[in-house]
Amino acid sequence: MQQRKFTSEQLAQMESRYRARLINSLSGFKSANLVGTIDAQGQTNLSIVSSVIHIGSNPPLLGFINRPNSVERHTLENILQTGVFTLNSVAADFAPLAHQTSARYAKQQSEFDAVGLTPQFETGFDAPFVLESELKMALTLKEHHRIKVNKTEMVIGQVEQIHLPSDALKADGYLDVEAMDLVTLSGLDSYHTTQRLFRLEYAKPDKKLSPLTVDGAESQWPRGHDKYS
Amino acid sequence: MQQRKFTSEQLAQMESRYRARLINSLSGFKSANLVGTIDAQGQTNLSIVSSVIHIGSNPPLLGFINRPNSVERHTLENILQTGVFTLNSVAADFAPLAHQTSARYAKQQSEFDAVGLTPQFETGFDAPFVLESELKMALTLKEHHRIKVNKTEMVIGQVEQIHLPSDALKADGYLDVEAMDLVTLSGLDSYHTTQRLFRLEYAKPDKKLSPLTVDGAESQWPRGHDKYS
Repeated sequence: MQQRKFTSEQLAQMESRYRARLINSLSGFKSANLVGTIDAQGQTNLSIVSSVIHIGSNPPLLGFINRPNSVERHTLENILQTGVFTLNSVAADFAPLAHQTSARYAKQQSEFDAVGLTPQFETGFDAPFVLESELKMALTLKEHHRIKVNKTEMVIGQVEQIHLPSDALKADGYLDVEAMDLVTLSGLDSYHTTQRLFRLEYAKPDKKLSPLTVDGAESQWPRGHDKYS
Repeated sequence: MQQRKFTSEQLAQMESRYRARLINSLSGFKSANLVGTIDAQGQTNLSIVSSVIHIGSNPPLLGFINRPNSVERHTLENILQTGVFTLNSVAADFAPLAHQTSARYAKQQSEFDAVGLTPQFETGFDAPFVLESELKMALTLKEHHRIKVNKTEMVIGQVEQIHLPSDALKADGYLDVEAMDLVTLSGLDSYHTTQRLFRLEYAKPDKKLSPLTVDGAESQWPRGHDKYS
């Protein structure tokens, strides 16, 4: 395919929405999660984020980026007030409702009501889960970092609870998020479902790599990858 | 589907590899990128990362997490030494080679040679690109943050160059990463290709949401999403 090059000068001169769509596409596919929070007065908030990343597994930590001066700011204020939040994976069937949470609703309007998703509360944890989501985590705030160059905030939470569908959890701990019909995002607004190519075994310097099934058993290379046999 | 709940006590008691697979699955689908670096002596390094996220579009910023005490530590050392790195999207055809870079190669061995990917240099930029990748970015280090709770490092770079296939760039700035056959990762080791459901228009509080084509034109809801019509 014909390649095209953009320099930093060209990026700086782009029309802002065009640049936002392009730059948001660069990282590749992203996770789609709903952050559920509540303020000290009991007002709930729900916000779709595409920046949730794995920070560590022991202790179990996830992080995400909060933009400054956006609708998501309510999310950050609530987390700083209460110290807790939930993450709820977005599946294909309610992806449009999840996307609608990105509209700039007023602080006093709950996105749950506005878009038609259902808050679910667990005893002993203040922040609301999303009933419609099959994979939900309760997290407590551990630290947050101000990104100096553009004043966004990195929020890092420790996973205190996981709710997941039993059938999707494999014997070796792998969770089959594809079987749960979770979507992945590209750019600002494109939603995709997935098709597994393979799992790959743990790589070692002097060993030929083998593909694995979803259950972690040795497998064959699929068509198109025969050169790796 | 039957739901199962895990508490923080249960997570703490899990066998460590089982926990690593589970916790690495929680964020959902992830991007797959190769970080290309070089040290002051000219030794190149290449490392697959699944934690690249969008930080901002003006200026254009991407970030990723470096684990402590892992093979990727060479990556961080090189970035701190030289101030530059590349990000190179992973496509399905060379995903096994990209995965192989996660093996613990010695510092003096370049992962490019070890796995069979090709370093590509651009005049005026020290860090190597991956020739086989169709979407490549040159970045300069802007800031890095030590995550206190587990000593990982968040590296944030500004995009100085983008190399992309012209055909994949849409009129409104959206980049069709699916057409480029980029993979998405789940868990530690599962690789997936994608199928677009829809793009969705910019959400507004009092407007019914419409789906868009890949080119950003108004569209119809696909089968299974008719309830949103």
